This record gives sequence, C-alpha cells and structure tokens, in this order.
Amino acid sequence: MNFDLLTTDNNSQARAGMLTTAHGSIETPIFMPVGTVGSVKAVTQEQLRNDVQAQIILGNTYHLYLRPGLEVLSAAGGLHSFNGWQRPILTDSGGYQVFSLAANRKIKEEGVVFQSHIDGSRHLFTPESVMDIQRTIGADIIMAFDECPPYPSEFVYARKSMELTHRWLDRCIKRLAETQPAYGHEQTLFPIVQGSTYKELRTISATEIAARECAGNAIGGLSVGEPEAEMYEMCGLVCEILPVHKPRYLMGVGTPWNLLENIALGIDMFDCVMPTRNGRNGMLFTWQGVINIKNKKWATDFSVIDEQTNCFASNNYTKAYLRHLFAAGEILGMQLASIHNLSFYLQLVKAAREQILAGTYAAWKAAMVPQLQTRL
Amino acid sequence: MNFDLLTTDNNSQARAGMLTTAHGSIETPIFMPVGTVGSVKAVTQEQLRNDVQAQIILGNTYHLYLRPGLEVLSAAGGLHSFNGWQRPILTDSGGYQVFSLAANRKIKEEGVVFQSHIDGSRHLFTPESVMDIQRTIGADIIMAFDECPPYPSEFVYARKSMELTHRWLDRCIKRLAETQPAYGHEQTLFPIVQGSTYKELRTISATEIAARECAGNAIGGLSVGEPEAEMYEMCGLVCEILPVHKPRYLMGVGTPWNLLENIALGIDMFDCVMPTRNGRNGMLFTWQGVINIKNKKWATDFSVIDEQTNCFASNNYTKAYLRHLFAAGEILGMQLASIHNLSFYLQLVKAAREQILAGTYAAWKAAMVPQLQTRL
Repeated sequence: MNFDLLTTDNNSQARAGMLTTAHGSIETPIFMPVGTVGSVKAVTQEQLRNDVQAQIILGNTYHLYLRPGLEVLSAAGGLHSFNGWQRPILTDSGGYQVFSLAANRKIKEEGVVFQSHIDGSRHLFTPESVMDIQRTIGADIIMAFDECPPYPSEFVYARKSMELTHRWLDRCIKRLAETQPAYGHEQTLFPIVQGSTYKELRTISATEIAARECAGNAIGGLSVGEPEAEMYEMCGLVCEILPVHKPRYLMGVGTPWNLLENIALGIDMFDCVMPTRNGRNGMLFTWQGVINIKNKKWATDFSVIDEQTNCFASNNYTKAYLRHLFAAGEILGMQLASIHNLSFYLQLVKAAREQILAGTYAAWKAAMVPQLQTRL
Repeated sequence: MNFDLLTTDNNSQARAGMLTTAHGSIETPIFMPVGTVGSVKAVTQEQLRNDVQAQIILGNTYHLYLRPGLEVLSAAGGLHSFNGWQRPILTDSGGYQVFSLAANRKIKEEGVVFQSHIDGSRHLFTPESVMDIQRTIGADIIMAFDECPPYPSEFVYARKSMELTHRWLDRCIKRLAETQPAYGHEQTLFPIVQGSTYKELRTISATEIAARECAGNAIGGLSVGEPEAEMYEMCGLVCEILPVHKPRYLMGVGTPWNLLENIALGIDMFDCVMPTRNGRNGMLFTWQGVINIKNKKWATDFSVIDEQTNCFASNNYTKAYLRHLFAAGEILGMQLASIHNLSFYLQLVKAAREQILAGTYAAWKAAMVPQLQTRL
C-alpha cells in the first residue's frame, strides 16, 4: 500500500492524497460505504461502481465470519471474488461488533468470548484469530483487534481498555508477520487509537500507535454517543500526533457536517452506516440540507430528489414519488434513498478534495456546514 | 392503438405481432412486469428499461386509487409522469383486487362497495368510476370493470357473474365514449372474458366480448386455482372465438411453461407477479429449470446465477453469493432475483417470438416446456 500526500490546506489541517492498494487507487479524503455482510444494503455492485462511484467499501469481520463463514469465503477465493467487488475493500476487526453484544460477550486477556446474534453459538475472537479471519476474507486494508469502550467510560476502565488494545495490537502485528496473504495480494494493517474522551489517554494511545509505524492509522471509539465537540477535540488532538505522511481513518463517522469538520482536522478516510441506514428510514442528505421524505409536505412536490447530486436516483425521481414509495412500503424507496445518499456522500468528499487542492477548503467548509445541517 | 399481426405459426395458434400505443411499440407475445403501486417491486425504472428491457408494465387501479390517490396522480400529470416510466402502461380495473377482499366487499348491480386494506375506509367502485380513475391514472391500455369469480364456482353463480360483467362492460364503453383522456394521449379499453371453467359460459362470454369490437380483448378468471389443463382448455376455446386481428391478453398468468403453452393457443400478452414475488422468496426461473436459491446445495456453487439469461444480475453474481444474501436477509438478494427473473421472462417471450417468426415454434415449445419445469 502506498499513500501520497498531495497537499495540505493552508487554513486547516485538511489534506488531499492518493492511497494505492492491490485493487486500485483511492482519492482521499474518501467515504467508504458499509457492506456489512458483503453487500451494501439495497445497492447493487453495478450501482455502487457506476452511480455511487464508490472507490472502496467496508466489510464487517464479525458478520462475515458468522455468515457466509470462512469455509465459503475461502472456497470463493475471498470476499472480492465472492461479492464481485473488484475495487479495494477494508474490513473492520469485529471488535466493535463483539463489544456491542454487551451481555453476550466476555473480555479476557486472551481475547473475547461471545455468542452469535444469529444462533447463540459460542465463539472466541483473539488478536491472532481475527488476523487469520481477515486473511481469509482477503481485504486490502485490515484492522487491528481492539476494545471499543462505551461512552461514557470511567477513566480507569478507559485506561485499562486502551492498554489491552495496545497489547492486542502487538499480537496482531506479530501474527501478520508470521502469516501470508491468502490470495497473493498485499493486506495492510491499520492499528486503532482508543482512549475514550480523555485527552491524556488519547495522547498516550496516539503516541503508542504512531510508534508501531504501521502504513496507516485509525481512530476508534468516537461517535459512540459523546457530544460532537468532544469528538472533534479528540480527533484534532490525535491527528496532531499521528504521522503526517500516513492515512488517517476515523471509524464510524458520520453526518455530512461531521465529515467536513473532521477533514479539517486531518482525517482522510471515513465509514458510516448513516447514508444507507438513515436512507432506508427515509432520511435524505442533500446539498441544501436534510429531508425527511416521509413528511406529508413532499406529497405533491414534483421536483427531483436533489438536482445538485449527479446521480440517476437523485435526478430522475421526484420527492413526491419517493415519498409515495415510503408510504406504500415499497423496497424501491429504500433503494433510491440509499443510492442517493451514498452518491451525495461520495460527491461531498470529492468536492472537499477539490477545495483542498484549490486551497479554499476552510472557507468552503465554514459556508457548507450550516447549509448541510438545515432541516428542509 | 394499432395491432399488426405479423405471422401465425403453422403448427399452433402462436402469433407474432406489433402493438403500437401512444407511448411506444410492443413486440408480441409480451410479458408485462407488475408494478402494483407504481413501482415494479425491488427494481428501478432504469433496470427495467435497460436490463430487463420491459416494453410495457402494469399498474393496479385499486392500489393506485388508495395510494398515492387520484389527487396526487392528477397533480403529477398521470402515472407515466409520476413514476418516470415513459413506455406503455396498462392498468387493471381493480376488479380482481376488490373481489380478493372477500369479506370486506359487497357486490351490487351498481358496483362494489369495499373497505380499504390500509385503513378500513369504505369506497364504491362502479364501471363508471373505474373508467374515470383509469383516465386519471392515464395508462395506455385500460381494463373493463369485471367480476372475477373464485375457483371453483357453481355454474349458476358463474353465469350470473358473467352476465353482470357484460352489463358492466357496456357501462364502461358508454362512460369512455362520454369522457376524454386526461393527458391528451389515447387510452384503449380491453374488455374481459369471464365464465369460470364452464365451456358453455366461456363460449357465450367470448362471443359477447367479441361483439363489442374493442381494439383488444382479455381473458380473466383463469390461473385462480384450477388445474392447468382446465386453464389451457378454456384459453384455447376463447382464443378460437376472439377476433384474430386483435391482441389477446391472458390476465395473471403465469409460470414460464404456462406462457409457452398459452402462446401456442393464441395469446399475445401476459402479466403475473410470479417473477417478482417468487423472486423475492428465492425462487429463480432459468432456461435449465427452477432453482430454490435458499437450498443449502448452492452454498459453494460459484457458477453464475444463469449464464443463458443475458442480464448483469444473472451473469455477474454467483449462486453461492445470492444464496448468502437470502440467508442473511439482505435486500440485494430480492433485487437480484427479481431482475434475473424478469429478464428471463422477457427473454423467454422474445425467444418465443423469434421461433414463431421462424416457423419453428411448436417443436421448440415442446422441447422447452419439460426443461423449464425441471427442478434444479
């Protein structure tokens, strides 16, 4: 994997770069649609490629491990072959999902014992097994196994959790060094900075993570319920410590304005279920603000969903028709909303990149944020 | 509307023709995907046009009347404008849906009083109101308001019902003559032959319907539970009576082999929810036979869904992946199965047409039917 930092904004920490993996290049800053079980919900791979113009998608290790399972993924020749997505893929480590199981998991030094949400069967994830699983899935970028503490967390718990994450990271690095990619192409590990909302811990964690000298770095444990101001504070602090010439990935974030604010702090990569999950519930993100398409006010609004987002879903269907589809419970409503939202997210980060390259990002961002937050 | 009968098969009653409406031409025999509430379930209009290559779709008057309702449809300028489908549209009369409500409707000479399945509100459909509603929806081909008796029906009930359908037909014709299309384009009425599974009644009804000299004719009340042999017998009998130079539409039919058998009897047009509804449940129709994709046997079958159906869904996704999508409850599974099935249906009737034009239909049909029925 290679990362070229092309430019940094004069009036913010925003950066434009180019990330190159075995399955192709990614222009940063980038947003990665989430394909939990190997499918970005309600969107075909053709639509993702040609309409959304996604450059990289994410898969969830926890979900893929349970279903279809490693036997099928291995027989298929990895996730790229299985789902037919030949551009880059990133997999998370399963840590976040496993910790979300709350009552159905137990954390030990060795790893985490958890029960499947599907059939209640018991499984053990260790840093080593999670590396092996990600080898079998075959993503281009793979994530270290971390513990993601909830918000709020006590300082002592957050510190212990962070230290465990650091010890697990070293086991991940060791395991990867001892094993080979399953399908011949390079797989690059990103470690994850934790530390909850404590500046002291985030500083320690970012310093520790930076010291591992991995090819890219991630920030986890944010956007888990804390106020946005705290997220930005932690993110800014960590970005100052993480190496400049390596990509920075803020996990699980967020709204369109969250993306723009965090880009200004030096983030290069994002993923979030928001454009698809909220889309399936009728929430649309547009250049003019946020639309709840289920609202009665759109019933006879025959203007297109969003003229400014260049996408067939946004330009060829009206708000009235989309509202009708949601009112009638038609699957097509979820499809169109998902495609529109993802297209908008990809075009938003593309526009951000152009502003960074033009040296005008900070002013553009300041003007855009309140507009994106408008409730239409 | 114009219908050119191009050729009739030497060894069967199969015909190839060209139907021309205000929104374009339709090659017959044709299959019409069902877009109940203005959307063919789980398929975008772009996919319908470019991948499925649908030439005409169907809308359901009952559903569209209830939701989005006539006010919205009228404000939109009709269904073509509302859903963005600029090719031909046919609407049913709501009769079949209303009679399916069973306990929640009451049939009188005037019309049918029924309760909405959505909110229980009471409504009256009369031949006149149904013509007015179809004017407002704006379909190119509109259907007469008929009573569709259940199977089995007593002879006396079936006869009375048929007679009511004939009286209602005359009221439909009168109403249409008194009113104008709402959006300037021609709307053509198809009357419906009824008579349950009684040859005597079907003969009377076909004769009565033919005497109205409408531009096209339909056969209703079949594929409602009767044995396939009875459906073919009734259909063949009616086709012998209906005028040769007008299109014949067999409503609500059916399986791929039902299509081929009825084409051999002289049918030109079909509609059915089967490719989409069964697709959403994991049943795939292919040139080699029928697949239940949920079956464990497909878990590691990495061959494409159907090599012989020319469609991105059929050619670019594997059976193993599609099975996984159904196992995981992913919407994408329903989308791909629907697109594949519809593409297959459209390519099946296209192949039938080519065989008719080549004069080889009967032999081809005889070879195809058992193959299509194979359980894979």
